[in-house]
Amino acid sequence: MARKVAIVGAGVSGLASIKCCLDEGLDPTCFEKSDDIGGVWRFTEYVEEGRPNLYKSLMSNTCKEMSAFTDFPYPEDFPVFLPHAKLLEYLRMYTKHFDLRKHIQFKTAVISIRKHPDFSATGQWDVITETNGKQTSATFDAVMVCIGYLTDPSLPLSSFPGIDRFNGQYFHSRDYKTPEVFKDKRVLVVGMGNSGVDIAVEAMRTAKKVMISTGRGAWVLSRVFDNGYPWDMVFLTRFLNIVRNSLPGRITTRLIESRASQWFNHANYGLNGSRFLEPVINDELPAGIITGKVTVRPSVKEFKETSVVFENTPDAEEVDVVVFATGYKASFPFIDDSVIKVENKHASLFKYIFPPLLEKPTLAVIGFLRPLGAVMPVVEIQARWVTRVFKGSCKLPSIKTMMEEINEKKKNKKNWFGLSFDEVLKTDSIVYVDQIASLIGIKPSIPALFLKDPELAMKIFFGPCTSYQYRLTGPGKWEGARKAIMSQWERTLKPTRTRVVEDSSNFLTYVLKVLAMLAVFVVLTYLV
Amino acid sequence: MARKVAIVGAGVSGLASIKCCLDEGLDPTCFEKSDDIGGVWRFTEYVEEGRPNLYKSLMSNTCKEMSAFTDFPYPEDFPVFLPHAKLLEYLRMYTKHFDLRKHIQFKTAVISIRKHPDFSATGQWDVITETNGKQTSATFDAVMVCIGYLTDPSLPLSSFPGIDRFNGQYFHSRDYKTPEVFKDKRVLVVGMGNSGVDIAVEAMRTAKKVMISTGRGAWVLSRVFDNGYPWDMVFLTRFLNIVRNSLPGRITTRLIESRASQWFNHANYGLNGSRFLEPVINDELPAGIITGKVTVRPSVKEFKETSVVFENTPDAEEVDVVVFATGYKASFPFIDDSVIKVENKHASLFKYIFPPLLEKPTLAVIGFLRPLGAVMPVVEIQARWVTRVFKGSCKLPSIKTMMEEINEKKKNKKNWFGLSFDEVLKTDSIVYVDQIASLIGIKPSIPALFLKDPELAMKIFFGPCTSYQYRLTGPGKWEGARKAIMSQWERTLKPTRTRVVEDSSNFLTYVLKVLAMLAVFVVLTYLV
Repeated sequence: MARKVAIVGAGVSGLASIKCCLDEGLDPTCFEKSDDIGGVWRFTEYVEEGRPNLYKSLMSNTCKEMSAFTDFPYPEDFPVFLPHAKLLEYLRMYTKHFDLRKHIQFKTAVISIRKHPDFSATGQWDVITETNGKQTSATFDAVMVCIGYLTDPSLPLSSFPGIDRFNGQYFHSRDYKTPEVFKDKRVLVVGMGNSGVDIAVEAMRTAKKVMISTGRGAWVLSRVFDNGYPWDMVFLTRFLNIVRNSLPGRITTRLIESRASQWFNHANYGLNGSRFLEPVINDELPAGIITGKVTVRPSVKEFKETSVVFENTPDAEEVDVVVFATGYKASFPFIDDSVIKVENKHASLFKYIFPPLLEKPTLAVIGFLRPLGAVMPVVEIQARWVTRVFKGSCKLPSIKTMMEEINEKKKNKKNWFGLSFDEVLKTDSIVYVDQIASLIGIKPSIPALFLKDPELAMKIFFGPCTSYQYRLTGPGKWEGARKAIMSQWERTLKPTRTRVVEDSSNFLTYVLKVLAMLAVFVVLTYLV
Repeated sequence: MARKVAIVGAGVSGLASIKCCLDEGLDPTCFEKSDDIGGVWRFTEYVEEGRPNLYKSLMSNTCKEMSAFTDFPYPEDFPVFLPHAKLLEYLRMYTKHFDLRKHIQFKTAVISIRKHPDFSATGQWDVITETNGKQTSATFDAVMVCIGYLTDPSLPLSSFPGIDRFNGQYFHSRDYKTPEVFKDKRVLVVGMGNSGVDIAVEAMRTAKKVMISTGRGAWVLSRVFDNGYPWDMVFLTRFLNIVRNSLPGRITTRLIESRASQWFNHANYGLNGSRFLEPVINDELPAGIITGKVTVRPSVKEFKETSVVFENTPDAEEVDVVVFATGYKASFPFIDDSVIKVENKHASLFKYIFPPLLEKPTLAVIGFLRPLGAVMPVVEIQARWVTRVFKGSCKLPSIKTMMEEINEKKKNKKNWFGLSFDEVLKTDSIVYVDQIASLIGIKPSIPALFLKDPELAMKIFFGPCTSYQYRLTGPGKWEGARKAIMSQWERTLKPTRTRVVEDSSNFLTYVLKVLAMLAVFVVLTYLV
C-alpha cells in the first residue's frame, strides 16, 4: 500500500489531489514552483515564465454549481459565472477548509521523477526537487502529476507563410493581458477557441478594426442560455446526454448546431463549418459581428509586409497586430519518455491518467484532458480514483485491456462532441466521470434512486449534472450531498436577484384569462 | 403657398427637412449652430455646450435597413447596426447625394422666432439669427424646428435626498464619454434607459463594482434577435403590430415580457417590474449580471457621505461615482410660450408636429418624439407631410379636431408600448407613420398589393416594416422602392457573411433522414 505521495503543482488538480490523498489516509507532499496556490487561476499583472497566464478579463466558462468540488459548494453570494479572482478565492477557501496548505512546499520545482532502482517491486519513485537553487532528492511511494497543459504555447509559425517578412507585431495569446495593446490598431486573431474569441471581443473596444480567422468555424454558445439559465446547467444533464449519445454523432451535431443557431444563424455570421465544430463559450461575439466591430475571416493563406491574405479571398487586408490563439503544447519535461511520451499532443494514458505499461500503477496524471464543462469535478474524480488505486482499494485492468481502450481512443472516433485542435484530449465529461465513478463505486444508481428518493432522482436525471451526486453513496459519502443538490438552483439565482419585485398578485388568474388568446397568437406567429 | 422655409438645426431631422423642402419646390434655409452637420450623431472628443453629446462607444439601436431614409438605402457593406461614425457617414452621403449642404448656414444660432406683424394673413415668421456675434433678421414663409430633445439634461437632484452631503463624484449621463473615468471606482448608474444600461455595461470593464438602480425595471432586448436577425426587423412587422394592437394592452405586455424572458428571465435578473416596462436595447447586460459585474438595484432612497441606500434594502452600499442617466428636458427657448409651451416634457402639438392654435399652419416641430424603432423614417415622413402642408397640398383638420386628439393623447392611455420617463413623447412608429402616410396619400394598400404584386405584399405585411414602402405610390414615388424592399435582406446579410463556407452538399438529403429522429428529440425535450 502506498503511503508517501508526491504531487507536482498546486493548481486545481494539485489541490484536489492533496485533499483526496488526505481522505484516503495517504501522506501527500505537494511541490509548487511558484509561491502561491491556484495555478492557472492565479492572475499576475505580468506574464511569468514557466507559469500559465491569465488575461485580466477572464471569467469561468462554467457556472459555479457545475464548477464546484463534490463536497464544497460555492457560497451562495458568489456570482453565477466567476471572474478569475473569485475562482481563486474559492480555491483559497477550499485550501483553508481542508487545511491543505501545510502539505505544500512552495518555490520548489520538480527537476526529475525517475523510477526507484527497485521500482518493479515497490513501485517507488525518486523525485529531485529544487528550492532556491538547492536540489533535494526524496523517495515517494507514488506520484500525481498535476501540471496542466497551459504553460507551453504552441506557435506553429511554419504553417503561416510569409510571417518572417511581416513587419507588424505578433504574439501568442498566452502573452495577452489587457486590450490597451490594441489601441487604434488593426488586429487579427488567429484561432477561434475560447481565448481567441475572448481576445477578439475585447480588442473591439480599443482597436481600429478586428478580424478573427478560423478554418473550421465554431459553435458559439452564450453563458446566458435558455431563459437566462447558465448554459451548462441546461445543456449538461444526464437526460440530454443520453439523447445526444443515443443518436448518431452527425445527427446530434446538427441538432446542436441548430440549437446554437437559435441564438444566431452561424452561417449568416460566417461561423459555420463543413464538419464538426468547436464549441466556444462567449456572450459578446455575435453583437460584435453584427455591429461590424469584429469580422470573421477564413484561414490565413499568407502574410505580407503589412497585411494578411486569407484563403479564397483575393484582397490583402492591412493588419498591425496578430495574436496567435493557437493553443498549447503538452509536455512532461521531468519524466522520462519511457514513462510518458507525448505524441501529437496526446499521451497514451489509460483514462487520460495512468501510463499503462508500468509494472506498478503508482504514477498518475491528473487534469490532462479538456472536458466539455467544468474541470473541477473531473479532476477531483480522477484524484479520488487514483488515490484509491494507490491505496490498493481499486485495481486497474490488465495491460492488454488498457492498451485496447487507449488504441480505440486514438482512432479519433467522431461523436457529437467533435474534434478540436487538441483532439483526443477532449472528452464528454458526464460519460467520463460516470466511468470513473463506477470504478470507485460511487456512481448514483438512478433507477434505484427513483424508487427510494424520486424527488432527488428527478433532479439528478433531468437537472444539471452537478458533482455533489458523486458524494451520495459509497466511499467518501458526504452527508451534505443531498441538500447541496436540492439547493443548487437557490445558490444559482441568489446573486442576481438583487432587486426583488413582487409580481402582480393577480398574475395567476390573469394567466388563465390570456391563455386562449395566447394560443391564437402563437399559432398565428408560427404560421408565418 | 409658402416658399421660403427656415429650418433650425442640421441633424437627422434638419437634413430630412431640407431634402423634403427641395422635393416640394420650397426654398429651405437651414441654420446650424455648430460648424457641421449630423446633430446628435456627430461625435466630439469633448462635451460641447449647447450640443447633444455622444459617448464614444455608442451604436445605433436600430439596424441599417430600418434606419434608412425612404429613398436612400445604406450601402450593402455597412454594418448591420451602426457605430456612430458610420451613421454620420451615411448622413454625409445623403447630404452630398441630394446636395443639401448649400442650403445650410453653419455657425448660425437661431435667437428668436416671432410671428411677423401680419402673421394672421401671411403666416410668416421673423427669424433672428446670430453668426459670429452679428445678428440678422429675415422673414420666412414657414419654419421647421429640428432641434431634437437631447441637449438639455434633466437632473432632478431634489428627488435624491442627501445628494448634497455625498462626497463622491456625480454627473449626468450627457457628460459621459469613455469608461476610463470609472477605473477602479465603485459606480452607481441611476436610471435604466438605453444610455444608463450602455454606461453600466461599459463601466464594468474598468470599474471595481457597478450597480444600476431602477424603480420600474426594464425589458431588455438584444440587437441579436431570433436566429441572430436584427431585433427590429423581426419585431417591427405590420403583421405582429396588428396582433399586438388587437390584443388588450396588458396581454400584449405580458407576451412581450415573456418573449424578452426567453433570452433571460427578467425576474431572476432583478429586472422585472410590476407595471409597464421600458424596452431597452442592449446585448451585454445579462452577461454582465450573471458574471456579477453589474448588480441591479431598486430606486435610490438616499445618499450618505460615501454611500447610497436603496429602497427596501437595509444596508448602505459604498459608492465613488454616480451617473444620473435621468434623461433630458425639452425646450424651445427661441419660440414664445404662446406658440409652443412645454409642460411636463410634453408640448401640445398635433401629431407631435403642429401647434394647433395658430391661424396658419406655418410652423412645425420635426423629431419631437421617441418612436420604438428608428428615428429616420419617422422624421422624414413628418417632413414630407409638413412640406406638403406648407405648400398647400395637404390640409390640417379643424382646431377642434386637433385639440380633441391632443387631449386624448394627454390622457396617457396605456397600450402595450407602455409609458416611459418621457411618457407621452413615445409612440408606436408603425401606426404613427401610417397615419401620416395616409394624410399624404402614400400609405401602401396591402389588400390591393396582394392582388397586384403578391410577392411584394408578403414582404411588406409579414416582413420588416422598412420605410421604402412609403415610396411605392403617390407623391414622391421612387422607382427604386420595390427593388430596395426586395433586396433588404441581402443588404442585411452581406456585411456579416465575410467567411462563406459551402454547406455540406448532401445536407438536404441528410435533413430528410434526420427528421424522424428530430421529432422524437423535440418531443422528449419539451416534455421535460
